[in-house]
Amino acid sequence: MINRLRKINSLLQEKNLDAILISSVPNIFYLTDFSNFSSEEREAYVLITKDKQYVFTDGRYIDAVKKEVQNFLFQEITAQTPFIKHLTTIVKQTNIKTIGFEETNITYWEYKRLAETKCTLVPVEISTIRSQKEPDEIIKIKAACQLGDETFRYMLSKVEPDVTEKALQTEIELFIKQHGADISFKPIVAFGENAAIPHHQSGNRKLRQGDCVLFDLGAKVNNYCSDMSRTVFFGKPTSEQKKVYQTVLESQKRAIDSLSKDGSSSRSVLAKNVDAISRNYITSQNYPTIPHSLGHGTGIEVHESPHVSPAAKDTLKENMVFSIEPGIYLPNFMGVRIEDLVLLTKTGVEILTLSPKELITL
Amino acid sequence: MINRLRKINSLLQEKNLDAILISSVPNIFYLTDFSNFSSEEREAYVLITKDKQYVFTDGRYIDAVKKEVQNFLFQEITAQTPFIKHLTTIVKQTNIKTIGFEETNITYWEYKRLAETKCTLVPVEISTIRSQKEPDEIIKIKAACQLGDETFRYMLSKVEPDVTEKALQTEIELFIKQHGADISFKPIVAFGENAAIPHHQSGNRKLRQGDCVLFDLGAKVNNYCSDMSRTVFFGKPTSEQKKVYQTVLESQKRAIDSLSKDGSSSRSVLAKNVDAISRNYITSQNYPTIPHSLGHGTGIEVHESPHVSPAAKDTLKENMVFSIEPGIYLPNFMGVRIEDLVLLTKTGVEILTLSPKELITL
Repeated sequence: MINRLRKINSLLQEKNLDAILISSVPNIFYLTDFSNFSSEEREAYVLITKDKQYVFTDGRYIDAVKKEVQNFLFQEITAQTPFIKHLTTIVKQTNIKTIGFEETNITYWEYKRLAETKCTLVPVEISTIRSQKEPDEIIKIKAACQLGDETFRYMLSKVEPDVTEKALQTEIELFIKQHGADISFKPIVAFGENAAIPHHQSGNRKLRQGDCVLFDLGAKVNNYCSDMSRTVFFGKPTSEQKKVYQTVLESQKRAIDSLSKDGSSSRSVLAKNVDAISRNYITSQNYPTIPHSLGHGTGIEVHESPHVSPAAKDTLKENMVFSIEPGIYLPNFMGVRIEDLVLLTKTGVEILTLSPKELITL
Repeated sequence: MINRLRKINSLLQEKNLDAILISSVPNIFYLTDFSNFSSEEREAYVLITKDKQYVFTDGRYIDAVKKEVQNFLFQEITAQTPFIKHLTTIVKQTNIKTIGFEETNITYWEYKRLAETKCTLVPVEISTIRSQKEPDEIIKIKAACQLGDETFRYMLSKVEPDVTEKALQTEIELFIKQHGADISFKPIVAFGENAAIPHHQSGNRKLRQGDCVLFDLGAKVNNYCSDMSRTVFFGKPTSEQKKVYQTVLESQKRAIDSLSKDGSSSRSVLAKNVDAISRNYITSQNYPTIPHSLGHGTGIEVHESPHVSPAAKDTLKENMVFSIEPGIYLPNFMGVRIEDLVLLTKTGVEILTLSPKELITL
């Protein structure tokens, strides 16, 4: 954790700030290792100054935080002493003039409260400090990927005539929970024409001969996420279905290969170039372009930095973990998405999700 | 849904606005009945003008939304046409000058984008339109409460020597999932001294003779939540443990009774007065005050309007559903919380969570 606090301290110096306020739950977890705060409502803030760091939380959590969090000072939020009162006191006592804050997390209401301190408020991007993973984080992500792979293997045995999308979705959730983990997001199971909707809400559609079956699932193990997609066929696919599948697979292969070839051994690849490799291959085969990004980072959050999209300015670097997930979606007919998590290493790329990708017919 | 849109239209008139932008996922669901958006990142906006209503979302959802949502116009967010570009076009075309927005949901970054439209931006509280439930919403909440009751009854059979908090927590999740529902929040199971931490993160603490066992759990059925807490004893409680339990139970009874007595049959009760009844009874018995609110509304969100706390300005009205959950927390010793969801009716109060409250010894 000390190492992570140093990253914030570097940001303080780089941006010439007196303090940085961290409000997003994943970033608070990253810095404190306290994983019990919920993102549904504001339950805590963290303030990092040049020589001190504070956690602010209320009566529901303060004792647990004091017990579990090291290297921080603690301030209890109460009805009488709301967060802004604590902050104002610290600002005055330690002569803070400029505060960095997470502008994509702090609400407008909170911003107005912060402005009451009369400090200069400076938007700072914090989440990117999590993009390059530490060795223990990679171990946790791998554990989540492994459970995802086991889940997919188990699910193949559950694909049978007339089963519904929702029944399979529930099976995924139960399997992951029974293994002592959490889902990293609501899994997607989509049959046939429903697979053409990239974020289809699994429903009561029953499986029929000739359907493609798209799975998109992830586990959360020790607070770290996995994410993967596979598409299989129930009954022998037609040549058109096969062609769609092979095109997606080839487009994914090209993107992954581009990450491992010598030319990118500098370990610094423009994300948008990787996106373009996959995307252009798909359109070159006369299929519609991918209606989403090619990929995204995964770690404490299932979607996090870096972004791998046409508009992304992100650079892919060593120890980043991100998805490569091209898809072809043909309305009223079918959809195929193949998604792996990959780790950029010093010398190449390591695929973390190891489920088979050859065309599976059930 | 039309009825709900009318509520927004009333707000438009009342606040003298040309449009209201709705960004929070529960409010978007309330207005559109589309439940697939995630709160983890911004996936959609809804704009209500005097004579039109729009859903803005991206390629992942646009087809599903078009298929499932009625009475709305649809605009697809893409890299080339981000939300703010769509909004700017509508603002110009329909001569919108003032826009209401959810200031506790819109981030500072989004606020800056909205400001680029040159419209006057006015904070508006939207969520309170959901406080008074419609009959079909009450039916869904009751179904969630019933599953919560079944879960609690099942869990009593799982309380055995040396079981861990985490094992019981997982059992709760599995039971609810196996019944085709979701958890409405990560359930809490706390033994003995851990029950003194109101939002304890269930861990590997093993159950021992003489422990209290605090359960706080809820189910989500058809997108509506339940929430309840019970505390039982493993082994015969001491007289001190019994006294703590009976004090919490009596403090809850007094609050609930205050809602059903003649004096409040106007069906308009100040929430803070109800909070005070429970709270003052506990402190009058020389126990520490409740370190959290007495209660909160529950519906699409597990925590929503109204607030039942010392500082709340909320008025409790007919058809509101909220929790009454006093607790006594004695550090390093024990904790007791008893929580029910109640519905304020025309003539009194209906308790929706029906699990037994007499002291249970296992």
